[in-house]
Amino acid sequence: MPSANASRRSQEKPREIMDAAEDYAKERYGVSSMIQSQEKPGKQCFLVLRQQQFNVQALVAVGDHASKQMVKFAANINKESIVDVEGVVRKVNQKIGSCTQQDVELHVQKIYVISSAEPRLPLQLDDAVRPEVEGEEEGRATVNQDTRLDNRVIDLRTSTSQAIFRLQSGICHLFRETLTNKGFVEIQTPKIISAASEGGANVFTVSYFKNNAYLAQSPQLYKQMCICADFEKVFCIGPVFRAEDSNTHRHLTEFVGLDIEMAFNYHYHEVVEEIADTLVQIFKGLQKRFQTEIQTVNKQFPCEPFKFLEPTLRLEYCEALAMLREAGIEMGDEEDLSTPNEKLLGRLVKEKYDTDFYILDKYPLAVRPFYTMPDPRNPKQSNSYDMFMRGEEILSGAQRIHDPQLVTERALHHGIDLEKIKAYIDSFRFGAPPHAGGGIGLERVTMLFLGLHNVRQTSMFPRDPKRLTP
Amino acid sequence: MPSANASRRSQEKPREIMDAAEDYAKERYGVSSMIQSQEKPGKQCFLVLRQQQFNVQALVAVGDHASKQMVKFAANINKESIVDVEGVVRKVNQKIGSCTQQDVELHVQKIYVISSAEPRLPLQLDDAVRPEVEGEEEGRATVNQDTRLDNRVIDLRTSTSQAIFRLQSGICHLFRETLTNKGFVEIQTPKIISAASEGGANVFTVSYFKNNAYLAQSPQLYKQMCICADFEKVFCIGPVFRAEDSNTHRHLTEFVGLDIEMAFNYHYHEVVEEIADTLVQIFKGLQKRFQTEIQTVNKQFPCEPFKFLEPTLRLEYCEALAMLREAGIEMGDEEDLSTPNEKLLGRLVKEKYDTDFYILDKYPLAVRPFYTMPDPRNPKQSNSYDMFMRGEEILSGAQRIHDPQLVTERALHHGIDLEKIKAYIDSFRFGAPPHAGGGIGLERVTMLFLGLHNVRQTSMFPRDPKRLTP
Repeated sequence: MPSANASRRSQEKPREIMDAAEDYAKERYGVSSMIQSQEKPGKQCFLVLRQQQFNVQALVAVGDHASKQMVKFAANINKESIVDVEGVVRKVNQKIGSCTQQDVELHVQKIYVISSAEPRLPLQLDDAVRPEVEGEEEGRATVNQDTRLDNRVIDLRTSTSQAIFRLQSGICHLFRETLTNKGFVEIQTPKIISAASEGGANVFTVSYFKNNAYLAQSPQLYKQMCICADFEKVFCIGPVFRAEDSNTHRHLTEFVGLDIEMAFNYHYHEVVEEIADTLVQIFKGLQKRFQTEIQTVNKQFPCEPFKFLEPTLRLEYCEALAMLREAGIEMGDEEDLSTPNEKLLGRLVKEKYDTDFYILDKYPLAVRPFYTMPDPRNPKQSNSYDMFMRGEEILSGAQRIHDPQLVTERALHHGIDLEKIKAYIDSFRFGAPPHAGGGIGLERVTMLFLGLHNVRQTSMFPRDPKRLTP
Repeated sequence: MPSANASRRSQEKPREIMDAAEDYAKERYGVSSMIQSQEKPGKQCFLVLRQQQFNVQALVAVGDHASKQMVKFAANINKESIVDVEGVVRKVNQKIGSCTQQDVELHVQKIYVISSAEPRLPLQLDDAVRPEVEGEEEGRATVNQDTRLDNRVIDLRTSTSQAIFRLQSGICHLFRETLTNKGFVEIQTPKIISAASEGGANVFTVSYFKNNAYLAQSPQLYKQMCICADFEKVFCIGPVFRAEDSNTHRHLTEFVGLDIEMAFNYHYHEVVEEIADTLVQIFKGLQKRFQTEIQTVNKQFPCEPFKFLEPTLRLEYCEALAMLREAGIEMGDEEDLSTPNEKLLGRLVKEKYDTDFYILDKYPLAVRPFYTMPDPRNPKQSNSYDMFMRGEEILSGAQRIHDPQLVTERALHHGIDLEKIKAYIDSFRFGAPPHAGGGIGLERVTMLFLGLHNVRQTSMFPRDPKRLTP
């Protein structure tokens, strides 16, 4: 092993001594302010240096490279400070169980504090990664959700958070990669809109110079306009806003939508198959490229691996109703699924088909929005679908009505003010291909793929009716 | 050539005859409603079938496959309708100059209208792709910008628009590809925020249940929090909102930000170089993969190819001042660049260095935001930079102050209410690496790369103080 092998860490970046002229920050860190608090340093001290998902043990010992004062200085560095370290990597005889790098340690020759953390941390990282069961059974500290979210900068440093958001970045990457390979074009749609296109409920109002505007509840109108503008297959990733006063484990007021819209030739199932295959490619990609991250999250939140079929299971709504009724649930033919019934259905489907992912097709027309294409073979059904992961909805979609006359009739039937949706209807007047699409909730996909239990764990800075900070 | 070679088009998709049971839309299109308006059909008619950037001539002639009535029907199909066509592809003797497919035409055997356009179009596509100079010199019709934007679904069908937005999709793709290869992680940041972090000017207010919230003017705070949370290198693509009453060719109230933030070891130039290289990779990728699109746009809007150097030219602000002064401009050392002076500087730099892209570094501290790191060697300068394309700013960035005490001092110096930026300052209290970053305007990059003159041409559905629709 080379004798001056420098190793770089983030909560420990080694650095060479800086040129004195360059060191503009020299009065804002360093020895004098750091060595005031501790009395009796020993002859050596151990540090754990962390960088993202990985950490290594470091040793500062009195000897050729370190003085007593230096050991004292190192022993007094506040937890979570950023340091630069230079040293020699040495093999150890006994595995270091508490670090990810178990076979080596770093013998420190130089150490500089780049940014000192305050001595009292609002939460301890060790507590923040402790499995809940250990907390309950062994009475050890865990960190509650509000404390985590109030101090998100620290909570995001845990190996679990690092893994969750690396995997989430992977979902976006796989979504785009798959769709780009399928010939889709990425579009950008406006979030400030002039009218609440779906009727006005659950929409945030924005002061727009001397008028009011609204935040888009979905990019749907704009995706559809792109289809009418001859782009054929489009996708977008962006924020979606819902002014819904829902304080559940799966609702956010702002979330990230992965949206797809596509013209088809003969049947909307062409689109359903493309969307389902896109999700399957995401699942496969995650299981292939993100095993480390999945296992890291599983350590804190144990869960069964996510199962799916190829091709994806497609059930019709009436089949789902039959399964639920067989399980003792009483439901009308045109009644929507409640959240508990969705979850029960997920369990029944898992038992029968051994899959955590399926499509529920042909929803009752009565429970879907006005722009949903009716099923030509059954006037009470519609060409619409949801997709589910572990019994929870992650996508809602439909064939949209592309005929201005029929969409007008359906809007009137729903009691919608035609004046408010004029621009929407007009976009079908100059040639509009049959098309369908859907919107996926990114945070829900991340949560359910990893078997987590709250969507706030998979939103970096979640927004709900009670939380707007940080 | 096979005798029943079907060819698919969008403003002409061929389709087989649909199963009668499947054809739920049969009362909403077809012969009877379409053949009422024209009197004397000839023995044949020509159509131009278009799909995205490409088109082909089609012939319907009385003979084995077409009757007089069918020719009459075809001749009466409204422009911009969606049709399905089945026919035979035949070589032509004389090139068809008006179509992109010049060597062949389609002999139609079956034709169905899938979605009929209204007979009167708000604008003609031929007029919408005509170069302005032809309009002026030959007195032929062109389409003004408001008509285009009011009827964006049709305007987006032009070959120019199709090319612009395919290239824009490519910019996002290249941005992410380059940064992912460099080890960056993609993040998603909230757009609804609780406090106007940069002091409160030019911010949109949102009604948030019983309180007020704001739309994020940039993802900067959240990018910085991710750096403090140990993600090291992050990027995001998302909407940015500016409540600025600016009605210029380059301002929008909502635009798409390509944002980068990165921890560095010794000098913020490590970050400047990564950003500049990312832009260079985008320029190279566009010139390599999007030549068809560039040439399509150039037909309507002629322009010199975009030039850049490797490595990117970096000028210091004082050098730029010297060049401007030499050209007769009077400016103080700590004065910001006006838009005309930026453009003049762009021309001077192009003359001297033969590049359309450069970095302007070390802006006067006085003209930059409070969080900008001062230059340790010159208290009137700062570690901040803008980047320019064809003389217009496309990126603004800086090393950010990562020390809570110094950022507090600078905020006080700027007269900012510390209470409002408490969360911002607190995020540096638990270990914060030195970091820098910047935000790129997607629409500006598209506009300036293609040499266009208005950012509304490169926003699908632009938002400005006077436009919120469609």
